[in-house]
Amino acid sequence: MRFLVAPTGFKECLDAREVADAIGAGIRRVVPRAVVDAMPLIDGGEGSARQLAGTTGGELVPVVVTGPVGEPVRSHFALLGGDGPRTAFVEVAAAAGLSLVPPGRRDPGLTTSRGVGELIAAALDAGTTRVVVGCGDSGICDGGAGALQALGAGVLDSTGRPVGSGGYALARARRIDTSGLDPRLRGVKLVIAANPSNVLTGPHGVARVFGPQKGATPAQVEEMAAAMSIWADLLRGHGGARIADLPGSGASGGLGAGLAAGLGGTLRSRFDVLFDQADLDRRLAVADLVITGEGAIDASTARGKVPAEVARLAKRRGKPVLAITGTIGPGAESSYDIGIDAIAGILTGPVDLADAISRAPELISDATARTLRMLLLGRSLAA
Amino acid sequence: MRFLVAPTGFKECLDAREVADAIGAGIRRVVPRAVVDAMPLIDGGEGSARQLAGTTGGELVPVVVTGPVGEPVRSHFALLGGDGPRTAFVEVAAAAGLSLVPPGRRDPGLTTSRGVGELIAAALDAGTTRVVVGCGDSGICDGGAGALQALGAGVLDSTGRPVGSGGYALARARRIDTSGLDPRLRGVKLVIAANPSNVLTGPHGVARVFGPQKGATPAQVEEMAAAMSIWADLLRGHGGARIADLPGSGASGGLGAGLAAGLGGTLRSRFDVLFDQADLDRRLAVADLVITGEGAIDASTARGKVPAEVARLAKRRGKPVLAITGTIGPGAESSYDIGIDAIAGILTGPVDLADAISRAPELISDATARTLRMLLLGRSLAA
Repeated sequence: MRFLVAPTGFKECLDAREVADAIGAGIRRVVPRAVVDAMPLIDGGEGSARQLAGTTGGELVPVVVTGPVGEPVRSHFALLGGDGPRTAFVEVAAAAGLSLVPPGRRDPGLTTSRGVGELIAAALDAGTTRVVVGCGDSGICDGGAGALQALGAGVLDSTGRPVGSGGYALARARRIDTSGLDPRLRGVKLVIAANPSNVLTGPHGVARVFGPQKGATPAQVEEMAAAMSIWADLLRGHGGARIADLPGSGASGGLGAGLAAGLGGTLRSRFDVLFDQADLDRRLAVADLVITGEGAIDASTARGKVPAEVARLAKRRGKPVLAITGTIGPGAESSYDIGIDAIAGILTGPVDLADAISRAPELISDATARTLRMLLLGRSLAA
Repeated sequence: MRFLVAPTGFKECLDAREVADAIGAGIRRVVPRAVVDAMPLIDGGEGSARQLAGTTGGELVPVVVTGPVGEPVRSHFALLGGDGPRTAFVEVAAAAGLSLVPPGRRDPGLTTSRGVGELIAAALDAGTTRVVVGCGDSGICDGGAGALQALGAGVLDSTGRPVGSGGYALARARRIDTSGLDPRLRGVKLVIAANPSNVLTGPHGVARVFGPQKGATPAQVEEMAAAMSIWADLLRGHGGARIADLPGSGASGGLGAGLAAGLGGTLRSRFDVLFDQADLDRRLAVADLVITGEGAIDASTARGKVPAEVARLAKRRGKPVLAITGTIGPGAESSYDIGIDAIAGILTGPVDLADAISRAPELISDATARTLRMLLLGRSLAA
């Protein structure tokens, strides 16, 4: 029996690799001769670069960049291992993540994506010919203007002078000058791995949907939304009429639109990119059972979390999917509709969160073993 | 698909009927056309009479009896419904339970089984021709002498005078006079449902094994053990040479031996009696899957708890067994060796015990539904 073990990390507990290892150990306790294909998955957000460097046999390259509030931060990108073009994975959260913004300074209209541009430049320095930008968990809303500026573009006001840093400043922007862009960008394939449900403008635009999460007041949200509209008009001149409505254009505070229009990058659904990177579909094709997992399975799972996306793809190939999770939350049943066939919780008795976290590898292994016994019992019922 | 749902209660949480109902509800959510045979089970101890009156469609008959410390207590026996001889179930714990002994008075050498004899007398008054005495959870160690006295027997010292009440007094006993026993006992089939691992005397005798649990000091344990030896010698004259070593002779502080020898009762393994009463074997024969359950599954489960006994019997008929439980404790895996094929926990997230208890019916139903999905997934893997 062939198992494809494709979980994501359990947040603030275990990374995806550790979860996959624990599940694999549980499988082997019950089915010693199982073939286990471990495929730890990421969603492109915080921690993804480190994880991807590890799982592809690549390396993490340290770089000091301008952080979201303008101060230098220790960051990194991943040089991926494996065949194909020399590829860098640039994690937005590693240069402009919400966790890099001190709680007292969480006004996303003032933070900058400059560090993301600096990471891309560092990836070019490393000789990569393909750069994947992973969006998610950002603390910015500057439409990617900071990243463009870091790579040599000008964002200019009506007098031809550069507007300052941050989203609010874009209200004064009247022209984007791409003549000074780093020429090496022309030889590079740039892919933006984004959540396709995020768009740049309108009632479901990034300022209104994510502004409050990133610390903006209602007034600040409206000011940012207005600035994003002006920015969208300028980007249309570079990326086509529909740039601001493209799926993923609103990713990472509009960075998706900025890199797509300003640098000719390709916006793709983050899971399509990441699953391709992991060769998921081919590995699904030969699996008898897919085991995915995440720290919690609840109503939000079906709306674009890793286990749901694994299940959707698995279902296209008619593969059964089991999810293992720390917490089975309200609305977990909605996962059944999108292809998760069964859900197993890992807890064995009344316990507090800290205790469960400290024993997570053991709990995951044990739960996997119990679950396999259940599957074998079910299989025997067919006989 | 036919399910036999045969759990016991979750201690201090839900009785066996409530657990069975919750499991049944969970089954029907996933397999709406399932045939569910609900068989709530008891172990003969505290709460068994009430439960058995309910599940057999019988009634609980209230009786005031002499409690274990000599004061009157409100007690009851169950008049069982159903076909066959008019049967009473007398629960030892309801007349002489440890919970009826005030913590400050827990010297099992002083407490009495008199109330058990009074319940048997009340059952005779009700016209029953079969009396099942359920042992377990008692706070006594008088070898059943109190019960015999209540039914008219004399327990006499060397001068022919009655010894007093309690186990210590038996050290002075030299003769049992059964001439005054209630004559109705001759027309009654008396069955003692006991844990067969309890014996009256010796290193694993009741005084040494259970004395400490019932509140005795080491010195008191030795005094009781000596009294039990004397009592065993007297009982041998009535019940045969091996009475003190028979399986179950030590049940309920030696009440097993006392009723078997003094009243001609039959000592039987409690689960054989209770399972026969529930017609378990016949109902097992037509089940496709057996679901049992208890509040906790751990190392002690295999040592004579309800789920283990259900599994043993199920295995004789080759039936698959699933156990649903509140807590999966250390050593739970030992249950696999005695016929439990798979174990499912009910908890969905970090939670304290009180919270889990208050939501138990919902948690049990949900866990059952999740488990059935797992079984169906396993069944589909066979295809």
